[in-house]
Amino acid sequence: MKVNGQSYRTIWTTADQRSVRIINQTLLPHQFVIEDLQTAEQAASAIRDMLVRGAPLIGATAAYGFALGMMHDASDSALDDYSRLLLATRPTAVNLRWALERCRNRVGPLPRAERVAGARALAAEICDEDVHICERIGHFGLQLLRELAAKKNGRSPVNVLTHCNAGWLATVDWGTALAPVYKAHNANIPVHVWVDETRPRNQGASLTAWELAAHGVPHTVIVDNAGGHLMQHGLVDLCIVGTYRTTACGDVCNKIGTYLKALAAHDNGVPFFVALPSPSIDWRSGNGLADIPIEQRDSSEVRSVTGLTRDGKLEEVTIVPEGSNIRNDAFDVTPAKYVTGFITERGISAANRDSLAELFPKTGRG
Amino acid sequence: MKVNGQSYRTIWTTADQRSVRIINQTLLPHQFVIEDLQTAEQAASAIRDMLVRGAPLIGATAAYGFALGMMHDASDSALDDYSRLLLATRPTAVNLRWALERCRNRVGPLPRAERVAGARALAAEICDEDVHICERIGHFGLQLLRELAAKKNGRSPVNVLTHCNAGWLATVDWGTALAPVYKAHNANIPVHVWVDETRPRNQGASLTAWELAAHGVPHTVIVDNAGGHLMQHGLVDLCIVGTYRTTACGDVCNKIGTYLKALAAHDNGVPFFVALPSPSIDWRSGNGLADIPIEQRDSSEVRSVTGLTRDGKLEEVTIVPEGSNIRNDAFDVTPAKYVTGFITERGISAANRDSLAELFPKTGRG
Repeated sequence: MKVNGQSYRTIWTTADQRSVRIINQTLLPHQFVIEDLQTAEQAASAIRDMLVRGAPLIGATAAYGFALGMMHDASDSALDDYSRLLLATRPTAVNLRWALERCRNRVGPLPRAERVAGARALAAEICDEDVHICERIGHFGLQLLRELAAKKNGRSPVNVLTHCNAGWLATVDWGTALAPVYKAHNANIPVHVWVDETRPRNQGASLTAWELAAHGVPHTVIVDNAGGHLMQHGLVDLCIVGTYRTTACGDVCNKIGTYLKALAAHDNGVPFFVALPSPSIDWRSGNGLADIPIEQRDSSEVRSVTGLTRDGKLEEVTIVPEGSNIRNDAFDVTPAKYVTGFITERGISAANRDSLAELFPKTGRG
Repeated sequence: MKVNGQSYRTIWTTADQRSVRIINQTLLPHQFVIEDLQTAEQAASAIRDMLVRGAPLIGATAAYGFALGMMHDASDSALDDYSRLLLATRPTAVNLRWALERCRNRVGPLPRAERVAGARALAAEICDEDVHICERIGHFGLQLLRELAAKKNGRSPVNVLTHCNAGWLATVDWGTALAPVYKAHNANIPVHVWVDETRPRNQGASLTAWELAAHGVPHTVIVDNAGGHLMQHGLVDLCIVGTYRTTACGDVCNKIGTYLKALAAHDNGVPFFVALPSPSIDWRSGNGLADIPIEQRDSSEVRSVTGLTRDGKLEEVTIVPEGSNIRNDAFDVTPAKYVTGFITERGISAANRDSLAELFPKTGRG
C-alpha cells in the first residue's frame, strides 16, 4: 500500500540482499521510520520489541531473520541456534513456529553453500504467499462493498466499521480486514472507515488510522464505546474485522471488544464479516469459548498510555490510580451465530463447519 | 463518602456562606484539589469545564451558582441573566433545567432583600433531596446485592460491573449506581466492582476507581472492550449503571458504551439494572432513540489523553494522528427491552411506562 504516494510492503530486502528493511511500528502514527536489519539478532529484537507485529508479518520477519543468520553462519549448529533464537521472541505466535519449521525443513537438507540462497528464496516465497492470500481476501470482500455501494446509489459512502488493526501493517501487504477497503478505494468506490480506537494498545487509533491516512482512504476514529450507537443510527453498513484464530465451527477469537461489536451488529441488522486467511483456522478446535485460552497481558498496558507531547516527544502517562487493580484480557471469542460470514482467500463462507470445510476440503475434513 | 477516612460531600458552602466549595474532578485521580466558587460565572465555568459533572451535581452546582449570582445582584434582570448563563453550560442535562426552573419559581416572587437567603436555602434543599434520593437508591439496591451474596454463599464476592462514573462524585453524596455498592460494603457484604475505563474521558479509570479506592471498596479497572468477555465467563453477577435521562417508556440515555454492555448482559443472562433517581425521568419523552438528541463533543477528547508523567506532572499526549477525523458522541440510548429494572428512590421498577408510573403516579400520568 502507499505512504505519501509511494508503494511499500511492510518488509523487503535491499537490492544487494545484505539487509532487510521494516517499518518501525512502535513509532507510528507519530514517526515513519524504516529500520535496517542486518543480523538474525536484530530480526529477533524487531519481533520481540514489536517493531513488527501481526501474525503474518511476524512469520515473514522470522523467515528473513533466519536468512540473515545463514549469511553469517550456515553450519548445522547455527541453523539450530537461529531457529531457537527467533522462536523464543513471541512464544504464542502460531505463524512464527510455522515459518521457522518451513525454514528448517527447506534449508536443512541443502548443502551449506546453497543455504543462504535457499533461505532467502523461502522468505520471499512466504511473503508472496501472504500477499496473495490478502489480495484474494480483498478481491472477494470488494464484491460485498460493491453490492452495498450499488444499494446506496451514491447517497453516501459505504461505511465500514473495523476493530484493531488488520490492515497491511499486520501483514506483508493489503491486510486482511482492510484489503477489501483498499480494493474498493482503488476502484473508486466511495468507502469510509469507522476506526475503533482499540484500547488498551490503541492499534486502531495508531496503526489503522495511520495506514488509511497514508493511502488516502477517508476514515474517522471513534472510541470503542461508540460503534453500537452509530449502528443504531444507520451509520454503519458493514463490519469487517480480522481474527487471531477461528475454530472449525466458526467461533472467532480476535482482539478484546470484537464480541461487543458483533452483538451490536446483530441487534441492528448490520452484516458482520470476519476476514479469515485459512492459516488462521484452527481445524482441531470446536467451541471457541471453551477451547481457546485467552492471554492475560500486563496491567501496564491499561494503566498507561503513550502519545506525543505538545513539544513533539513520545511520553508515557499514567491514567489509572496506583491503588486500583487492573485486569487485561487480550482477546475475546465471538460465537459463530453472530458472524454473518467469513471472507477467505477462496471466497465467502458462512460461519459454520460445513461451509468452511466445503471451501477447504483437504484441511477441513477428517 | 470517605476520602482518607474523612467524610465529604461533593459540594458545600463555607461557614460564612460567601463561597461554595467543590472538588475539582478534572484533576482526579492524580490530585485532590478543592476549589472555591465565589460568583455565578465561576459556577458556570465549573459546570462547562466539567470540574463538576454528573446530572445531580450539575443541578446542585447550578442552584448554588444562582445563589452566588443573587449575592452579587438580586434584580429581576439579573435573575434572568444568571439562569440563562447557567442553563447554557451543558445542553443535554435535564437536572440543570429543572434546578434552574425551581430557582426562578422560588426566588422570583420574593422581595429583593430575601432573594439571597431564599436562593441559598433552596440550593441546600436541592442538595439534601439528592442525598436522600441516592441513599434510598442505595437502600433498595442493597437488597439486590444481598440476595446475590446469599446465592453465592461466600464462594466469591458479588461482582458488579459499572460504566462511567455514577458514584458519589456525580451526585452530592452516595452516588446512584454506586450507592448500593457502598451500602453493601458498609454492611460487610463482600462486593467487588469491575470498573469500565470509559473512554474518551476515562471517568471510570479516574473517578470511579478513585472514589472506590478512597472508600476502600475492592475493584478492578478494565478497558471498555472487556466487559462482554467477562460476562461470557461468568465473572459478572450484575451490571448497575447510572442514567443521564430516561424516557417514560424506560429507554435509557447514558454515557456512550452503556448500550454495548446491556447487549452483552442480555446475551449472557446477567441482570442489567439502571440506578434511576426520579428527576432523571423525562416523562414527556417516549422513544429514546428518536427523541433524545445526543451531544457531540470536541474531537480533542478522543485525540488526546491526560495523565501523570514519570516525574509526577500532568501532561496531555496525542494518540490519534493529525490527519484522521474523529467523531465523539457523548451518550447512547439503551432500549428498555435490555434493561432488567430500575432502582429508584421509591423501589425497584420494571423498565416500562406502567411500572414507572405506578411508582410515580403524580408525575407519571397525564
